[in-house]
Amino acid sequence: MKSPTALDHLVESLRCLPGVGPKSALRMAYYLLQHNRTGADILAQALQNALQKIGHCSSCNNFSEEPLCGLCATGKRDSRLLCVVEMPTDLLMLEQTHSYKGMYFVLMGRLSPLDGIGPREIHLDRLLKRAQDGMVEEVILATNYTVEGEATAHYVSELLKARGIEVSRIARGLPMGGEIEHVDSGTLAQAMLERRTIR
Amino acid sequence: MKSPTALDHLVESLRCLPGVGPKSALRMAYYLLQHNRTGADILAQALQNALQKIGHCSSCNNFSEEPLCGLCATGKRDSRLLCVVEMPTDLLMLEQTHSYKGMYFVLMGRLSPLDGIGPREIHLDRLLKRAQDGMVEEVILATNYTVEGEATAHYVSELLKARGIEVSRIARGLPMGGEIEHVDSGTLAQAMLERRTIR
Repeated sequence: MKSPTALDHLVESLRCLPGVGPKSALRMAYYLLQHNRTGADILAQALQNALQKIGHCSSCNNFSEEPLCGLCATGKRDSRLLCVVEMPTDLLMLEQTHSYKGMYFVLMGRLSPLDGIGPREIHLDRLLKRAQDGMVEEVILATNYTVEGEATAHYVSELLKARGIEVSRIARGLPMGGEIEHVDSGTLAQAMLERRTIR
Repeated sequence: MKSPTALDHLVESLRCLPGVGPKSALRMAYYLLQHNRTGADILAQALQNALQKIGHCSSCNNFSEEPLCGLCATGKRDSRLLCVVEMPTDLLMLEQTHSYKGMYFVLMGRLSPLDGIGPREIHLDRLLKRAQDGMVEEVILATNYTVEGEATAHYVSELLKARGIEVSRIARGLPMGGEIEHVDSGTLAQAMLERRTIR
Protein backbone atom coordinates (compact mmCIF):
# COMPACT_ATOMS: atom_id res chain seq x y z
CA MET A 1 0.00 0.00 0.00
CA LYS A 2 1.22 3.48 -0.84
CA SER A 3 1.14 6.11 1.90
CA PRO A 4 -1.80 8.56 1.82
CA THR A 5 -1.28 11.60 -0.38
CA ALA A 6 -2.30 15.22 0.19
CA LEU A 7 -5.37 14.47 -1.95
CA ASP A 8 -6.34 11.40 0.11
CA HIS A 9 -5.94 13.48 3.23
CA LEU A 10 -8.13 16.29 1.85
CA VAL A 11 -10.87 13.83 0.79
CA GLU A 12 -10.82 12.20 4.23
CA SER A 13 -10.97 15.59 5.97
CA LEU A 14 -13.94 16.80 3.89
CA ARG A 15 -15.93 13.88 5.29
CA CYS A 16 -16.09 15.67 8.66
CA LEU A 17 -18.81 17.83 7.04
CA PRO A 18 -22.34 16.58 7.77
CA GLY A 19 -23.97 14.78 4.83
CA VAL A 20 -20.70 14.36 2.93
CA GLY A 21 -19.81 10.75 2.04
CA PRO A 22 -16.76 9.36 0.19
CA LYS A 23 -18.11 10.18 -3.30
CA SER A 24 -19.12 13.78 -2.57
CA ALA A 25 -15.84 14.34 -0.71
CA LEU A 26 -13.87 13.24 -3.78
CA ARG A 27 -16.02 15.40 -6.05
CA MET A 28 -15.52 18.40 -3.75
CA ALA A 29 -11.75 17.90 -3.60
CA TYR A 30 -11.45 17.65 -7.39
CA TYR A 31 -13.72 20.65 -7.86
CA LEU A 32 -11.75 22.84 -5.46
CA LEU A 33 -8.36 21.86 -6.89
CA GLN A 34 -9.49 22.37 -10.46
CA HIS A 35 -11.93 25.26 -10.39
CA ASN A 36 -11.72 27.14 -7.13
CA ARG A 37 -8.34 27.20 -5.43
CA THR A 38 -9.01 30.72 -4.19
CA GLY A 39 -12.28 29.57 -2.60
CA ALA A 40 -10.50 26.66 -0.91
CA ASP A 41 -7.89 28.99 0.54
CA ILE A 42 -10.57 31.39 1.80
CA LEU A 43 -12.45 28.43 3.32
CA ALA A 44 -9.33 27.20 5.15
CA GLN A 45 -8.80 30.66 6.63
CA ALA A 46 -12.50 31.10 7.52
CA LEU A 47 -12.47 27.75 9.37
CA GLN A 48 -9.44 28.69 11.42
CA ASN A 49 -10.75 32.19 12.07
CA ALA A 50 -14.13 30.83 13.22
CA LEU A 51 -12.55 28.21 15.50
CA GLN A 52 -10.42 30.90 17.10
CA LYS A 53 -13.10 33.57 17.53
CA ILE A 54 -16.46 31.87 18.05
CA GLY A 55 -17.55 30.79 21.52
CA HIS A 56 -20.88 30.90 23.38
CA CYS A 57 -22.82 33.88 24.72
CA SER A 58 -22.71 33.83 28.53
CA SER A 59 -26.38 34.76 28.69
CA CYS A 60 -28.29 32.97 25.89
CA ASN A 61 -25.72 30.25 25.08
CA ASN A 62 -25.92 31.01 21.33
CA PHE A 63 -22.71 31.15 19.27
CA SER A 64 -21.03 34.52 19.74
CA GLU A 65 -17.71 36.24 19.16
CA GLU A 66 -18.24 38.41 22.23
CA PRO A 67 -18.79 37.22 25.83
CA LEU A 68 -22.31 38.66 25.46
CA CYS A 69 -23.96 38.31 22.03
CA GLY A 70 -25.49 41.24 20.10
CA LEU A 71 -29.06 40.24 20.86
CA CYS A 72 -28.48 39.93 24.62
CA ALA A 73 -26.40 43.12 24.77
CA THR A 74 -28.81 45.40 22.88
CA GLY A 75 -30.96 46.33 25.91
CA LYS A 76 -33.94 46.88 23.59
CA ARG A 77 -35.51 43.45 24.14
CA ASP A 78 -38.20 42.58 26.66
CA SER A 79 -36.28 40.92 29.49
CA ARG A 80 -39.49 39.59 31.07
CA LEU A 81 -39.80 36.96 28.34
CA LEU A 82 -37.32 34.10 27.88
CA CYS A 83 -37.78 31.81 24.87
CA VAL A 84 -36.05 28.40 25.00
CA VAL A 85 -35.06 26.90 21.61
CA GLU A 86 -33.09 23.80 20.64
CA MET A 87 -30.75 25.23 18.02
CA PRO A 88 -29.41 28.58 16.75
CA THR A 89 -31.34 28.03 13.50
CA ASP A 90 -34.60 27.95 15.50
CA LEU A 91 -33.70 31.33 17.00
CA LEU A 92 -33.03 32.70 13.51
CA MET A 93 -36.39 31.40 12.25
CA LEU A 94 -38.22 33.04 15.17
CA GLU A 95 -36.36 36.31 14.65
CA GLN A 96 -37.37 36.31 11.00
CA THR A 97 -41.05 36.34 12.02
CA HIS A 98 -40.53 39.69 13.84
CA SER A 99 -43.24 38.50 16.22
CA TYR A 100 -41.12 38.12 19.36
CA LYS A 101 -39.24 40.82 21.21
CA GLY A 102 -38.04 38.95 24.32
CA MET A 103 -34.78 37.18 25.19
CA TYR A 104 -33.62 33.67 24.24
CA PHE A 105 -31.87 30.64 25.64
CA VAL A 106 -30.35 28.16 23.17
CA LEU A 107 -30.08 24.59 24.53
CA MET A 108 -27.73 23.53 21.67
CA GLY A 109 -29.55 20.20 21.49
CA ARG A 110 -32.44 18.29 22.97
CA LEU A 111 -32.76 15.58 25.62
CA SER A 112 -31.93 12.24 24.02
CA PRO A 113 -30.86 9.67 26.60
CA LEU A 114 -30.13 7.04 23.93
CA ASP A 115 -27.52 9.36 22.38
CA GLY A 116 -26.10 10.21 25.81
CA ILE A 117 -27.58 13.70 25.81
CA GLY A 118 -28.90 14.44 29.29
CA PRO A 119 -29.76 17.62 31.24
CA ARG A 120 -26.07 18.52 31.64
CA GLU A 121 -25.38 18.41 27.87
CA ILE A 122 -28.19 20.87 27.10
CA HIS A 123 -27.06 23.25 29.89
CA LEU A 124 -30.22 23.09 32.01
CA ASP A 125 -28.31 24.29 35.10
CA ARG A 126 -27.48 27.51 33.24
CA LEU A 127 -31.07 27.83 31.99
CA LEU A 128 -32.44 27.55 35.54
CA LYS A 129 -30.05 30.22 36.77
CA ARG A 130 -30.91 32.41 33.77
CA ALA A 131 -34.67 32.01 34.38
CA GLN A 132 -34.27 33.08 38.00
CA ASP A 133 -32.44 36.37 37.37
CA GLY A 134 -35.33 38.36 38.89
CA MET A 135 -36.39 39.85 35.53
CA VAL A 136 -37.85 36.84 33.71
CA GLU A 137 -41.61 36.47 34.24
CA GLU A 138 -42.42 33.85 31.63
CA VAL A 139 -40.40 31.11 29.97
CA ILE A 140 -41.69 30.14 26.50
CA LEU A 141 -40.69 26.63 25.44
CA ALA A 142 -40.12 26.64 21.67
CA THR A 143 -38.53 23.21 21.27
CA ASN A 144 -39.65 21.16 18.27
CA TYR A 145 -42.86 19.14 18.24
CA THR A 146 -40.88 15.93 17.83
CA VAL A 147 -40.72 13.12 20.40
CA GLU A 148 -37.40 14.42 21.73
CA GLY A 149 -38.42 18.09 21.60
CA GLU A 150 -41.64 17.29 23.47
CA ALA A 151 -39.78 15.28 26.13
CA THR A 152 -37.33 18.15 26.55
CA ALA A 153 -40.17 20.67 26.91
CA HIS A 154 -41.90 18.47 29.49
CA TYR A 155 -38.71 17.95 31.54
CA VAL A 156 -37.76 21.63 31.45
CA SER A 157 -41.29 22.77 32.33
CA GLU A 158 -41.33 20.51 35.42
CA LEU A 159 -38.01 21.97 36.61
CA LEU A 160 -39.17 25.55 36.06
CA LYS A 161 -42.66 25.13 37.57
CA ALA A 162 -41.10 23.58 40.70
CA ARG A 163 -39.28 26.91 41.10
CA GLY A 164 -42.50 28.92 40.70
CA ILE A 165 -41.67 30.21 37.20
CA GLU A 166 -44.50 30.63 34.68
CA VAL A 167 -43.97 28.39 31.67
CA SER A 168 -45.73 28.33 28.28
CA ARG A 169 -45.39 26.30 25.08
CA ILE A 170 -45.66 27.60 21.51
CA ALA A 171 -48.99 26.67 19.92
CA ARG A 172 -49.64 23.64 17.79
CA GLY A 173 -52.27 23.43 15.05
CA LEU A 174 -52.91 23.75 11.35
CA PRO A 175 -50.20 25.61 9.43
CA MET A 176 -51.05 28.84 7.56
CA GLY A 177 -52.88 27.85 4.37
CA GLY A 178 -53.26 24.32 5.77
CA GLU A 179 -56.18 22.27 4.47
CA ILE A 180 -57.93 19.89 6.85
CA GLU A 181 -58.03 17.31 4.08
CA HIS A 182 -54.24 17.20 3.88
CA VAL A 183 -53.07 17.67 7.46
CA ASP A 184 -51.94 14.62 9.47
CA SER A 185 -54.42 13.28 12.03
CA GLY A 186 -52.16 13.97 15.04
CA THR A 187 -51.97 17.66 14.20
CA LEU A 188 -55.70 17.79 13.50
CA ALA A 189 -56.53 16.13 16.83
CA GLN A 190 -54.37 18.66 18.68
CA ALA A 191 -55.86 21.56 16.73
CA MET A 192 -59.30 20.40 17.82
CA LEU A 193 -58.22 19.87 21.44
CA GLU A 194 -56.49 23.25 21.67
CA ARG A 195 -59.27 25.22 19.90
CA ARG A 196 -59.68 28.88 20.85
CA THR A 197 -62.88 30.71 21.74
CA ILE A 198 -63.66 33.41 19.17
CA ARG A 199 -64.56 36.61 20.98
CA MET B 1 -26.53 46.62 8.70
CA LYS B 2 -24.05 45.01 11.07
CA SER B 3 -20.67 43.98 9.66
CA PRO B 4 -20.23 40.28 8.81
CA THR B 5 -19.09 38.07 11.68
CA ALA B 6 -16.64 35.14 11.67
CA LEU B 7 -19.70 32.88 11.45
CA ASP B 8 -21.14 34.75 8.42
CA HIS B 9 -17.75 34.53 6.79
CA LEU B 10 -17.48 30.77 7.43
CA VAL B 11 -21.00 30.13 6.06
CA GLU B 12 -20.22 32.18 2.95
CA SER B 13 -16.89 30.34 2.45
CA LEU B 14 -18.49 26.89 2.77
CA ARG B 15 -20.65 27.78 -0.24
CA CYS B 16 -17.57 27.43 -2.47
CA LEU B 17 -18.12 23.66 -2.12
CA PRO B 18 -20.12 22.15 -5.00
CA GLY B 19 -23.73 21.35 -4.11
CA VAL B 20 -23.70 23.42 -0.92
CA GLY B 21 -26.35 26.15 -0.73
CA PRO B 22 -27.06 28.70 2.02
CA LYS B 23 -29.02 26.25 4.21
CA SER B 24 -26.47 23.40 4.10
CA ALA B 25 -23.63 25.87 4.63
CA LEU B 26 -25.29 27.15 7.80
CA ARG B 27 -25.93 23.59 8.99
CA MET B 28 -22.30 22.63 8.31
CA ALA B 29 -20.95 25.68 10.14
CA TYR B 30 -23.13 25.02 13.20
CA TYR B 31 -22.24 21.33 13.16
CA LEU B 32 -18.49 21.97 12.98
CA LEU B 33 -18.55 24.64 15.71
CA GLN B 34 -20.67 22.55 18.03
CA HIS B 35 -19.62 18.95 17.44
CA ASN B 36 -16.37 18.75 15.51
CA ARG B 37 -13.90 21.57 16.06
CA THR B 38 -11.02 19.12 15.68
CA GLY B 39 -12.35 17.99 12.31
CA ALA B 40 -12.70 21.60 11.17
CA ASP B 41 -9.12 22.33 12.14
CA ILE B 42 -7.86 19.23 10.30
CA LEU B 43 -9.93 20.23 7.25
CA ALA B 44 -8.42 23.74 7.22
CA GLN B 45 -4.92 22.27 7.31
CA ALA B 46 -5.71 19.61 4.66
CA LEU B 47 -7.04 22.32 2.32
CA GLN B 48 -3.91 24.44 2.66
CA ASN B 49 -1.64 21.41 2.37
CA ALA B 50 -3.42 20.22 -0.79
CA LEU B 51 -3.33 23.67 -2.39
CA GLN B 52 0.38 23.90 -1.73
CA LYS B 53 1.36 20.39 -2.86
CA ILE B 54 -1.03 19.29 -5.61
CA GLY B 55 -0.36 20.25 -9.23
CA HIS B 56 -0.73 18.41 -12.53
CA CYS B 57 1.30 15.50 -13.94
CA SER B 58 3.37 16.74 -16.88
CA SER B 59 2.50 13.60 -18.84
CA CYS B 60 -1.13 12.63 -18.16
CA ASN B 61 -2.39 15.95 -16.76
CA ASN B 62 -3.99 14.21 -13.74
CA PHE B 63 -3.60 15.74 -10.28
CA SER B 64 -0.21 14.86 -8.82
CA GLU B 65 2.14 15.89 -6.04
CA GLU B 66 5.16 15.02 -8.20
CA PRO B 67 6.03 16.47 -11.65
CA LEU B 68 5.31 12.97 -13.00
CA CYS B 69 2.46 11.01 -11.33
CA GLY B 70 2.86 7.48 -9.96
CA LEU B 71 0.97 5.86 -12.82
CA CYS B 72 3.06 7.57 -15.52
CA ALA B 73 6.33 6.98 -13.67
CA THR B 74 5.87 3.25 -12.99
CA GLY B 75 7.24 2.05 -16.36
CA LYS B 76 5.06 -1.06 -16.09
CA ARG B 77 2.21 0.26 -18.27
CA ASP B 78 1.77 -0.32 -21.99
CA SER B 79 2.96 2.94 -23.54
CA ARG B 80 1.46 2.04 -26.95
CA LEU B 81 -2.04 2.74 -25.63
CA LEU B 82 -3.24 6.19 -24.57
CA CYS B 83 -6.71 6.48 -23.05
CA VAL B 84 -8.32 9.94 -22.99
CA VAL B 85 -10.79 10.61 -20.16
CA GLU B 86 -12.66 13.72 -19.06
CA MET B 87 -12.04 13.64 -15.31
CA PRO B 88 -9.73 12.02 -12.72
CA THR B 89 -12.77 10.09 -11.40
CA ASP B 90 -13.17 8.46 -14.84
CA LEU B 91 -9.53 7.32 -14.66
CA LEU B 92 -10.16 5.86 -11.19
CA MET B 93 -13.25 3.99 -12.42
CA LEU B 94 -11.29 2.50 -15.34
CA GLU B 95 -8.41 1.51 -13.06
CA GLN B 96 -10.86 -0.26 -10.76
CA THR B 97 -11.89 -2.54 -13.64
CA HIS B 98 -8.29 -3.85 -13.94
CA SER B 99 -9.03 -4.26 -17.66
CA TYR B 100 -6.68 -1.60 -19.02
CA LYS B 101 -2.91 -1.50 -18.73
CA GLY B 102 -2.01 1.46 -20.98
CA MET B 103 -1.39 5.15 -20.24
CA TYR B 104 -3.90 7.97 -19.73
CA PHE B 105 -4.52 11.58 -20.60
CA VAL B 106 -6.98 13.53 -18.42
CA LEU B 107 -8.67 16.45 -20.21
CA MET B 108 -9.94 17.93 -16.91
CA GLY B 109 -13.20 18.78 -18.63
CA ARG B 110 -15.05 18.48 -21.91
CA LEU B 111 -15.69 20.83 -24.81
CA SER B 112 -18.56 23.11 -23.92
CA PRO B 113 -18.52 26.30 -25.97
CA LEU B 114 -21.54 27.74 -24.14
CA ASP B 115 -19.57 27.57 -20.86
CA GLY B 116 -16.48 29.03 -22.52
CA ILE B 117 -14.64 25.69 -22.50
CA GLY B 118 -12.80 25.33 -25.80
CA PRO B 119 -9.84 23.23 -27.02
CA ARG B 120 -7.35 25.31 -25.02
CA GLU B 121 -9.21 24.76 -21.71
CA ILE B 122 -9.09 20.96 -22.08
CA HIS B 123 -5.38 21.03 -23.02
CA LEU B 124 -5.74 19.56 -26.53
CA ASP B 125 -2.36 21.02 -27.58
CA ARG B 126 -0.70 18.93 -24.85
CA LEU B 127 -2.73 15.86 -25.82
CA LEU B 128 -1.62 16.13 -29.46
CA LYS B 129 2.01 16.44 -28.40
CA ARG B 130 1.58 13.50 -26.00
CA ALA B 131 -0.04 11.32 -28.70
CA GLN B 132 2.88 11.98 -31.06
CA ASP B 133 5.67 10.91 -28.70
CA GLY B 134 6.67 8.06 -31.04
CA MET B 135 5.42 5.36 -28.65
CA VAL B 136 1.63 5.76 -28.77
CA GLU B 137 0.01 3.55 -31.42
CA GLU B 138 -3.64 3.93 -30.48
CA VAL B 139 -5.62 6.62 -28.71
CA ILE B 140 -8.75 5.33 -26.96
CA LEU B 141 -11.38 8.01 -26.41
CA ALA B 142 -13.19 7.28 -23.15
CA THR B 143 -15.14 10.51 -22.76
CA ASN B 144 -18.74 10.20 -21.57
CA TYR B 145 -21.60 9.28 -23.86
CA THR B 146 -23.24 12.63 -23.21
CA VAL B 147 -23.78 15.34 -25.83
CA GLU B 148 -20.68 17.19 -24.69
CA GLY B 149 -18.59 14.03 -24.25
CA GLU B 150 -19.55 12.88 -27.73
CA ALA B 151 -18.72 16.27 -29.25
CA THR B 152 -15.35 16.22 -27.50
CA ALA B 153 -14.61 12.70 -28.78
CA HIS B 154 -15.55 13.73 -32.31
CA TYR B 155 -13.41 16.87 -32.24
CA VAL B 156 -10.39 15.09 -30.73
CA SER B 157 -10.67 12.16 -33.15
CA GLU B 158 -10.62 14.51 -36.15
CA LEU B 159 -7.47 16.22 -34.84
CA LEU B 160 -5.71 12.90 -34.20
CA LYS B 161 -6.74 11.22 -37.45
CA ALA B 162 -5.46 14.24 -39.41
CA ARG B 163 -2.07 13.45 -37.88
CA GLY B 164 -2.28 9.78 -38.89
CA ILE B 165 -2.89 8.46 -35.36
CA GLU B 166 -5.20 5.48 -34.87
CA VAL B 167 -8.23 6.41 -32.74
CA SER B 168 -10.86 4.23 -31.10
CA ARG B 169 -13.90 4.86 -28.91
CA ILE B 170 -15.02 2.75 -25.92
CA ALA B 171 -18.04 0.60 -26.78
CA ARG B 172 -21.64 1.55 -26.21
CA GLY B 173 -24.44 -0.94 -25.58
CA LEU B 174 -26.49 -2.64 -22.92
CA PRO B 175 -24.98 -2.57 -19.43
CA MET B 176 -24.05 -5.84 -17.68
CA GLY B 177 -27.27 -7.39 -16.42
CA GLY B 178 -29.23 -4.91 -18.54
CA GLU B 179 -32.69 -5.97 -19.66
CA ILE B 180 -33.91 -4.93 -23.10
CA GLU B 181 -37.29 -4.13 -21.58
CA HIS B 182 -35.77 -1.50 -19.30
CA VAL B 183 -32.98 0.08 -21.34
CA ASP B 184 -33.58 3.44 -23.05
CA SER B 185 -34.29 3.38 -26.78
CA GLY B 186 -31.17 5.38 -27.73
CA THR B 187 -28.88 2.83 -26.09
CA LEU B 188 -30.85 -0.04 -27.61
CA ALA B 189 -30.64 1.46 -31.10
CA GLN B 190 -26.88 1.86 -30.76
CA ALA B 191 -26.50 -1.67 -29.37
CA MET B 192 -28.31 -2.96 -32.45
CA LEU B 193 -26.29 -0.79 -34.83
CA GLU B 194 -22.94 -1.75 -33.26
CA ARG B 195 -23.74 -5.48 -32.96
CA ARG B 196 -20.77 -7.83 -33.09
CA THR B 197 -20.39 -10.97 -35.18
CA ILE B 198 -20.16 -14.05 -32.96
CA ARG B 199 -17.31 -16.19 -34.18
